[in-house]
Amino acid sequence: METTSQAALLVKMTVAAWDTQNNYFTKLIDTLGNEQLQKEVAPGRNTGVYLLGHLVAVSDAMLPLLGWGDKLYPELEEVFIKNPDKATAVKPSVAELKEKLHTVNAKLSSHFHTATIDQWLDRHMAVSQEDFAKEPHRNRLNVLISRTNHMANHIGQLLLLK
Amino acid sequence: METTSQAALLVKMTVAAWDTQNNYFTKLIDTLGNEQLQKEVAPGRNTGVYLLGHLVAVSDAMLPLLGWGDKLYPELEEVFIKNPDKATAVKPSVAELKEKLHTVNAKLSSHFHTATIDQWLDRHMAVSQEDFAKEPHRNRLNVLISRTNHMANHIGQLLLLK
Repeated sequence: METTSQAALLVKMTVAAWDTQNNYFTKLIDTLGNEQLQKEVAPGRNTGVYLLGHLVAVSDAMLPLLGWGDKLYPELEEVFIKNPDKATAVKPSVAELKEKLHTVNAKLSSHFHTATIDQWLDRHMAVSQEDFAKEPHRNRLNVLISRTNHMANHIGQLLLLK
Repeated sequence: METTSQAALLVKMTVAAWDTQNNYFTKLIDTLGNEQLQKEVAPGRNTGVYLLGHLVAVSDAMLPLLGWGDKLYPELEEVFIKNPDKATAVKPSVAELKEKLHTVNAKLSSHFHTATIDQWLDRHMAVSQEDFAKEPHRNRLNVLISRTNHMANHIGQLLLLK
């Protein structure tokens, strides 16, 4: 196999792994439904709705990190990233978070499936050109790998609500 | 950047993602200790020791799946993969499972860090040559991506024991 197609295949596999986790997450949220998502995944731990909002916020934050525009819902960061579950009494509804999830996913997907290999292997926005020259693994695709594992981590917790 | 180094970088990133999860898992098991690992991650769910054994068994099973020899501990499959937690009254001790984890990790690591790009992108043992010709993503590295996400999923659950 020639090396160009090797790199293309590797990028495709990595994007497919994100899609697998992300599609599973979306289906899981639908399966669980509103009532179960209000519960804690274990006694005293995060609720399903908090983890849903957290994952929407983290996905949304990939847009500026990957240099693909501003966050669509910057207000989610305060509630679902900067603060823990119990710190905020009023949260967006499950229906609202699901709608935001779909919108963020659509925008991310349009980039994920059109970015070239060179674009994937270019630096993300949180690393300087100087550091990137020394550490070429600090690229966009590595952000996606990291976010895929982060999502899998929380899916494991959400599964406990089933 | 030339394409050969692109593929090499992509393989390196994928192996590094496994190492990150796997090292985190190993440290988490040490941090939790024997007593906490006996508990269920949520009421009525798997115990920590079951998830530990499950992850050792799944890692061990990568050896034949990747064509790198037989399983070191084939007896783990019955208890930790084929059967659920509550089906088996007597399980190996945490100390024994931790020792097996270290041995399996050492063997896997020796392969992970020496395999060439072509070896990583060759088929795994559960796909036929005919199917692999049509579906080149069914390669060894894709098994590693899948197992990394599987581990992240269970780490999310083990974290609830903290």
